[in-house]
Amino acid sequence: MASIAPTVDPNANPAIAAQQKILALPATESRRMADAIRVLAMDAVEKAKSGHPGMPMGMADAATVLFTKYLKHDAADPRWADRDRFVLSAGHGSMLLYAWLYLSGHAGMGIEDIKNFRQLHSVAAGHPEFGEHPAIETTTGPLGQGISTAVGMAMAERHLSARFGKSLVDHRTWAVVGDGCLMEGISHEAASIAGHFKLNKLTVLWDDNGISIDGDVSITSSDDVLRRFQSYGWAVRRVDGHDHEAVARALDASTRSSKPTIIACKTIIGFSAPSKAGTASTHGSALGAPEVQAAKQLLGWDAEPFVIPEDIKNAWEAAGRRSAGTRRSWLKRLAKHPQKAEFERAMAGKLPEGWHEAAAAHRAKLAEDKPKIATRVASQRALEALVPAVPELMGGSADLTGSNNTNVKGIPVFSVQNPAGRYVHWGIREHGMAAAMNGLALHGGVIPYSGTFLVFADYMRPAIRLAALMRQRVIHVLTHDSIGLGEDGPTHQPVETLASLRVIPNLFVYRPADAMETAECWELAVQRADGPAVLALSRQNLPALRTEAGENKSARGGYVLAEASGPRKATLIATGSEVMLAMAARETLEAEGIPTAVVSLPCWELFALQDESYRAQVLGDAPRVGIEAALGFGWERWLGADGTFIGMTGFGASAPAEELYRHFGITAEAAVAAVRRKLA
Amino acid sequence: MASIAPTVDPNANPAIAAQQKILALPATESRRMADAIRVLAMDAVEKAKSGHPGMPMGMADAATVLFTKYLKHDAADPRWADRDRFVLSAGHGSMLLYAWLYLSGHAGMGIEDIKNFRQLHSVAAGHPEFGEHPAIETTTGPLGQGISTAVGMAMAERHLSARFGKSLVDHRTWAVVGDGCLMEGISHEAASIAGHFKLNKLTVLWDDNGISIDGDVSITSSDDVLRRFQSYGWAVRRVDGHDHEAVARALDASTRSSKPTIIACKTIIGFSAPSKAGTASTHGSALGAPEVQAAKQLLGWDAEPFVIPEDIKNAWEAAGRRSAGTRRSWLKRLAKHPQKAEFERAMAGKLPEGWHEAAAAHRAKLAEDKPKIATRVASQRALEALVPAVPELMGGSADLTGSNNTNVKGIPVFSVQNPAGRYVHWGIREHGMAAAMNGLALHGGVIPYSGTFLVFADYMRPAIRLAALMRQRVIHVLTHDSIGLGEDGPTHQPVETLASLRVIPNLFVYRPADAMETAECWELAVQRADGPAVLALSRQNLPALRTEAGENKSARGGYVLAEASGPRKATLIATGSEVMLAMAARETLEAEGIPTAVVSLPCWELFALQDESYRAQVLGDAPRVGIEAALGFGWERWLGADGTFIGMTGFGASAPAEELYRHFGITAEAAVAAVRRKLA
Repeated sequence: MASIAPTVDPNANPAIAAQQKILALPATESRRMADAIRVLAMDAVEKAKSGHPGMPMGMADAATVLFTKYLKHDAADPRWADRDRFVLSAGHGSMLLYAWLYLSGHAGMGIEDIKNFRQLHSVAAGHPEFGEHPAIETTTGPLGQGISTAVGMAMAERHLSARFGKSLVDHRTWAVVGDGCLMEGISHEAASIAGHFKLNKLTVLWDDNGISIDGDVSITSSDDVLRRFQSYGWAVRRVDGHDHEAVARALDASTRSSKPTIIACKTIIGFSAPSKAGTASTHGSALGAPEVQAAKQLLGWDAEPFVIPEDIKNAWEAAGRRSAGTRRSWLKRLAKHPQKAEFERAMAGKLPEGWHEAAAAHRAKLAEDKPKIATRVASQRALEALVPAVPELMGGSADLTGSNNTNVKGIPVFSVQNPAGRYVHWGIREHGMAAAMNGLALHGGVIPYSGTFLVFADYMRPAIRLAALMRQRVIHVLTHDSIGLGEDGPTHQPVETLASLRVIPNLFVYRPADAMETAECWELAVQRADGPAVLALSRQNLPALRTEAGENKSARGGYVLAEASGPRKATLIATGSEVMLAMAARETLEAEGIPTAVVSLPCWELFALQDESYRAQVLGDAPRVGIEAALGFGWERWLGADGTFIGMTGFGASAPAEELYRHFGITAEAAVAAVRRKLA
Repeated sequence: MASIAPTVDPNANPAIAAQQKILALPATESRRMADAIRVLAMDAVEKAKSGHPGMPMGMADAATVLFTKYLKHDAADPRWADRDRFVLSAGHGSMLLYAWLYLSGHAGMGIEDIKNFRQLHSVAAGHPEFGEHPAIETTTGPLGQGISTAVGMAMAERHLSARFGKSLVDHRTWAVVGDGCLMEGISHEAASIAGHFKLNKLTVLWDDNGISIDGDVSITSSDDVLRRFQSYGWAVRRVDGHDHEAVARALDASTRSSKPTIIACKTIIGFSAPSKAGTASTHGSALGAPEVQAAKQLLGWDAEPFVIPEDIKNAWEAAGRRSAGTRRSWLKRLAKHPQKAEFERAMAGKLPEGWHEAAAAHRAKLAEDKPKIATRVASQRALEALVPAVPELMGGSADLTGSNNTNVKGIPVFSVQNPAGRYVHWGIREHGMAAAMNGLALHGGVIPYSGTFLVFADYMRPAIRLAALMRQRVIHVLTHDSIGLGEDGPTHQPVETLASLRVIPNLFVYRPADAMETAECWELAVQRADGPAVLALSRQNLPALRTEAGENKSARGGYVLAEASGPRKATLIATGSEVMLAMAARETLEAEGIPTAVVSLPCWELFALQDESYRAQVLGDAPRVGIEAALGFGWERWLGADGTFIGMTGFGASAPAEELYRHFGITAEAAVAAVRRKLA
């Protein structure tokens, strides 16, 4: 091999010398299987002329050990419920995942897909995209999300294992992370959660290659990462990531740990690249044909691009079938299990029989009681009906339980001692919570809901975006949804938050006006299997505006709450806590002989999905006034060019809520005046 | 004291017993000064009927030691440039800050202000708001922001001390944080940055009271916090937070450390509350009159509400003047300092003479060269002109330097070895970066700019919001601003991000169309002293559309880039990389005899500030078509009810950029077709 030594001086790049030592060892079958990953990564990136070869080349060895010896996974059924979950948190290294899927014989990942890496409609997208292939457990790419989502998956396993027993649920979660994932703040939150809940069936392989995009990690970080994870209560190990046996020993040990485990795999990024290995230049672009060719020579790899020697492909396919027997045994256990139907229902994300009756009974009671309560309290009442009826609902709050009203009496807390508990005290870790919730939903068998203040949606935003992109049923209960929260002031008062959430594709943002609408919106959020929801809820009390319990009117997103007494002269459109202002304004206007309709618009996204004629009928032709205690950005859509918007024009202030509404001019009087001006 | 023992069994709440022991000790003057903070916190919250008494009552002792013995601060001039910075990261404990300001004799914080705590227009807002009082160094409340902002302040000190010398810049940064701050992920990023840069003039006092809102911290966290900070390279200490001498020793030691220091102050939340101390019930609401009265009895406090005994007030005022001599010496040094004028200019945030000439010369060169480059590259060229001309500009990137084009040749890197360096390798820590940038700006003497991908604005959002709320000159360079980034796919392609940023009050979002507009937008961002900016920049090359260098046309936010050849039949409105599509469409339409104008809209916020008649003239009366490779949310504002929008309708995809534009129908042809339909 020495004859094709790199042209660079190995002394100038210690990784080259280290690499040469490793390559001088006899190539075992396991090493050659790893080389297959490396070669496919190089070839695919080269053909696409873009991508990230460095990580798959560096982590191929450790990943091969995981895939061939530890991961419980059957290529014949990659969605088997009791499979181990594998999360590629360092999502830019997507070719590691695609190469494994192809090599181990998964349907839906052929060599043509690999050749189409990063091309339109390819399942082999630039980053792993959930939904493109059944074995892709989650979308990754935004750093730190994968490890945090994996924590949620491990929580789901722990919980469902307690609910259904080990004979049905007993699997591990494995994640491959890079330095970037660990520098991100979300990794702190997630790791702390995992340590606190002693999620010992979680193993994280850290690609400790010492390189990030700007260069050596020492430029940016002096962290003692393993010491840090020890502080969270994790087991930690350090291995040569190119030593298959050492990796195996570490993985093996992690399966016996009473704590979550992180294994620092010391690797050389771009391993086998003769001149670029160990440098940032292998991270995010093609190596170039000469470097690829020389790398293959170093590996003793003679095959044409995209061609895998038969013996290696066979070995990989055998590895892909390794857990087939385990799966068959599991299927037999399932077939005889008394909870078979319930387990299958829960994992399929189907709501249980009777849930809707419980919800309907709750709404009937609201129609009778007509409670004047905050919508956050109405949300709690809805949960009191739904949580007992839907055993998959698993709630929690980022340390604002009493404020978010997310708990339900009698529902036990999830803990080390009681993993069957369904309420999670997430701590002040909004981002970790939201990403873990994505993991709970992706795992299946859980419908997670959260709690925090609406303004702190900002802290969770990257994870909310991923829930929307992956179309996961994740429900965020976000209370204190306007200046109506009062004295805590502008840092806590959302003004731009509603708009910033409404703009996220696939996310449904509900802002109910009273207890009845809250119940309706909760039903809609729980029912919708293919996307996340935000419930924006008031801190302050709101009167009952809807007192009939029949049709779920919120299901159309917007509707006429009160029709004008004659031909409409004005339409007031409002959401949430401002609908009552619209109703008060209507009363004044009607008394003045101005027939006025009030439209409640609890969910813009659903309203936009209605047909044009319905929307036109609801919004009407009369002059429109919109009222929302938030910025008007986006309201033009409903108000048209001539509409008037009554709301905020900047940040809020610290004062009692009622004073703030007056101070900012968000009042029924302002709405009345606006209509009068329109009609003058 | 035993006679007024609480009605609760002290054995049921160990904090009560511990508190009784402490209260049994002789009350020193220092303890009585701390009691004054406690009493004011109780009184103010009681009167406001809302607020957070627990934290000020628990941390009053440690804070008193800091304020009276260590903090370099002169109440007579709280903005003195070389003062120590004090950051109350646990912002809900705002009464700790207000009580200190009042007690130590600050103008602008009288007892009436304390009585108006949390009322409209009061400087004593619910959370500390920058701008309300000159001694409030930063707005806090959203947890984790304060500690991270403090890291930026300490960086600014280190940098400016290297630039101007220790005789002008030599001060510390002190932060009080709670468990919430430390659970937040941003604290990981910030602490890691501080450890890496060995910011030894930073001392963090952790209010280690073991309580969060949901109850005992042990419910949510098992972290060994001090071990964690050791992993970042911090010095750590643990003291009884009610033992003034122990706190003094720890603060003293921190001033001699070669590392940043965190001091765990073991405290009792709500200290002195006879039945509620040590419980979450003291955290976020008034204690109630009986509890307050009993607490005062326990403290031996006889004065009426809001009345401070003269001896204690005098002692506090003396403490407020403690550094007056130090300040006078400093003023003398400044007066004789050769860099006096430059230092004062920089700290005042005034741009240096000659900066505009440098910028103008750059634009003149662009007019000549007409480069076809990505706007991210154009941004780098603008920086090559601005960075040498404006010594306050301090740039960086969250590990995407080569992609964000944020570095400038010859500008040294900020490091332990070279703190005079002006380029920061922030690591993959977007949120920590953005919050630290707020600290750099708030400190004064630095104009920070960042770099990351536009989509990752989501990771920084809470800090961007605070920059906007505080109106700080913080500039975010956000590249890869659309599907035009291509193969990295939907996780990396912003579609909702522009809208989500445009909705933030006070934030100016620039999306320039070519190199000239990029230069103009950079000038505007640097010039604007009272608010943050985002520059959204393309990955892909764009032709030069503007080839004259006179007026800064971007300054009006939007303008007619190409007027119609006759009476307008259509107006195409676009931003950034889509302006070239509008120009191409115009060419086709004009050739078809349809006089068409193109409007470039690089900054919506500035355009909205123009007078109505200018806007009407620019937008015109002809049918309007908007083009932006993003969602249309908010575009109705410019397009009116009858406009057509050409852009995205959901998330992006992974493919080469040009294919994506075709795939999603964002093309000149689509714009032409839209106009034809309008005119048909």
